[in-house]
Amino acid sequence: MSAAGPVVGIVGGGQLARMLAEAATPLGIHVRVLAAPGDEGAVEVVPDVQVGAPDDPDALRSFAATVDVVTFDHENVDHETLAALEADGVAVRPGVDTLRFSDKAHQRVAFAAAGLPVPPFAIVDPVADPAAAVAVAEAFGAEHGHGDVLVVKASRGGYDGRGVWMLGPSELPGFMAEYRGAPLVLEPRLALEREVAVLVARRPSGQTATWPVLETVQVDGMCDEVFLPAPIDDEHAATAAAVAATVAEVTGAVGVLAIELFISGGRVLINEIAPRVHNSGHLTIEGTGTSQFEQHLRAVLDWPLGPTDPVAPVAVMANVVGGPDADPRDRQAVALARVPEAHVHLYGKTARPARKIGHVTVLGDALADTRARANLAADLLAGGGDMGGSRDE
Amino acid sequence: MSAAGPVVGIVGGGQLARMLAEAATPLGIHVRVLAAPGDEGAVEVVPDVQVGAPDDPDALRSFAATVDVVTFDHENVDHETLAALEADGVAVRPGVDTLRFSDKAHQRVAFAAAGLPVPPFAIVDPVADPAAAVAVAEAFGAEHGHGDVLVVKASRGGYDGRGVWMLGPSELPGFMAEYRGAPLVLEPRLALEREVAVLVARRPSGQTATWPVLETVQVDGMCDEVFLPAPIDDEHAATAAAVAATVAEVTGAVGVLAIELFISGGRVLINEIAPRVHNSGHLTIEGTGTSQFEQHLRAVLDWPLGPTDPVAPVAVMANVVGGPDADPRDRQAVALARVPEAHVHLYGKTARPARKIGHVTVLGDALADTRARANLAADLLAGGGDMGGSRDE
Repeated sequence: MSAAGPVVGIVGGGQLARMLAEAATPLGIHVRVLAAPGDEGAVEVVPDVQVGAPDDPDALRSFAATVDVVTFDHENVDHETLAALEADGVAVRPGVDTLRFSDKAHQRVAFAAAGLPVPPFAIVDPVADPAAAVAVAEAFGAEHGHGDVLVVKASRGGYDGRGVWMLGPSELPGFMAEYRGAPLVLEPRLALEREVAVLVARRPSGQTATWPVLETVQVDGMCDEVFLPAPIDDEHAATAAAVAATVAEVTGAVGVLAIELFISGGRVLINEIAPRVHNSGHLTIEGTGTSQFEQHLRAVLDWPLGPTDPVAPVAVMANVVGGPDADPRDRQAVALARVPEAHVHLYGKTARPARKIGHVTVLGDALADTRARANLAADLLAGGGDMGGSRDE
Repeated sequence: MSAAGPVVGIVGGGQLARMLAEAATPLGIHVRVLAAPGDEGAVEVVPDVQVGAPDDPDALRSFAATVDVVTFDHENVDHETLAALEADGVAVRPGVDTLRFSDKAHQRVAFAAAGLPVPPFAIVDPVADPAAAVAVAEAFGAEHGHGDVLVVKASRGGYDGRGVWMLGPSELPGFMAEYRGAPLVLEPRLALEREVAVLVARRPSGQTATWPVLETVQVDGMCDEVFLPAPIDDEHAATAAAVAATVAEVTGAVGVLAIELFISGGRVLINEIAPRVHNSGHLTIEGTGTSQFEQHLRAVLDWPLGPTDPVAPVAVMANVVGGPDADPRDRQAVALARVPEAHVHLYGKTARPARKIGHVTVLGDALADTRARANLAADLLAGGGDMGGSRDE
């Protein structure tokens, strides 16, 4: 290693790698990124980039040989190669056994077996047997769907609302016959009081640090806003934190782990987890004592973890979502003129509809006002005019 | 310009350029650095670096042609070339007329002429006429020095205690005969109650934003610690802020301007100014609504400025100063084990005695405890053992 200090290798070159690199620089941590040819985000701001596909064993091996620890911007990485690297003594953090929990079917089965609260579910593999998939789905729907649509999720490969379908009983046979992806997780369409998330960081030596519960607001299956604190009662908050701690143990997580939870019918249920830094935690950069990105680096290097307490009464994050016309890199002054206290984070990505290209965090004293200001800044960056307030009004 | 969004060119590749680049990335600002061959700090973390001397007119010209605005990591830049670039319409921010205030003799003369409070001073040029320099110094010493030593400062080229001498009457002739540098500023050795600093940011269009008064603690002529808030009375704070506002106008500053002030004999006196981001402002990164680095970028791009209010009751910055043995990039875990809430900033510079190689900021509720924790973290990073608290005990 030519660089002084520790070298963290990040597989994937998107915005999570970019924000990990932003956190690494002050800490004196050298970041090296394995970026796929099309990756945008980290590449323009990280000097040390190896270009290679995350599912290319040779690329992964040569990359791992140049770093002290391997970690991840995303989960679409070749598990077999990673397992071989682990067997060779490479520090892969989180490890392959944790990364397997990126599979939504694996999550549900393992969490149910561990006695953790999950929604009713069934798993089908229509590629292997479409008729059986339809039969299971119809029986599941009859028991849990009350004749209504089922929520059908690809166990792997989905993100930001992609890979999720709402299907009525009559649509099931056609869908199952045509589907060509990974096995599917079926669940009832739950009546949700709220969606919340808990982030926890864990070191190889076992120390954990948990942030306060966050409320997440989803629009079209994509995270749109996050609030700290989540306006939930103490009992739900305690349950959510306890569930997160158990998930961290069950998954053997190292680094940051995001647990997305439903609050439905007065119960806290695990929706899904991601074994990495996560959109729901972006507001920790300014809103808590330690950002998720710094904490992830500290955790994968087995350094002591930092405090997770809020630094302001309220923090709100709003995503900047691409529109057809505007590049947010031309619109900072427009947004800051109206919301000078906005903490602007742009990812260096080409704007496309429904693509996250940045986020804004605003700290404040009261939720409604802080939320309106964060959304105003995000809307202005995204190319919107001034609509006078939050987009949910 | 191939990069999307604005391109800010920074002349000089030290830690101030590094921290400007850290602030630029989230904002979607592309940073390009003109680094001298030996510069450490920014080069290892900024992908877009042109190597060239800041006093090489050809390098400056070719650099300026590739950026939207030229700004500075340090003041040792060829003024003639910058003036020619300004005449050609290049956005040089701050401009050459402001950069001339980096000269301590120019500062004193101009501020005295503007009616601003400065210590008694005289200016001599021993290279041109050593005998006259001695005569002026002896007369000045008789009037202001009370037979004690004089403080003698090189008007240009000094930093971190270099270029400052304390000379008794008997030492003056020998010193003036041998001195070969820029003209000297003489001042009495003042009895100081405190040293404070005010940072102000100013846009080309005139908007200004001023941070609360900071207390600076100097050791061996080098900034060692900074506290927010400065424990001074409201009258002194108001005077300091008013002086800073006038200095910003008199100098025509654009970007961040640091004004270092003495509080001596109950009066607020200007010690010196720097037309750039400054060591005294590093705690603004975590300690106030907008960091000096983000604010400088916003100011030189003529974007709206951000709020400067503190985000915690107390913030303390302690510099990490190089020792002979330890690289702080091997010692983060040691420091974070004792002070997990420390915000660590390392500059990627080779450790040498009396060289600033990083800083730590700690936020807290009470000055004494916060100061002890910041100093403990800085000492541990610098290679010290655990001395049980702050180094000034």
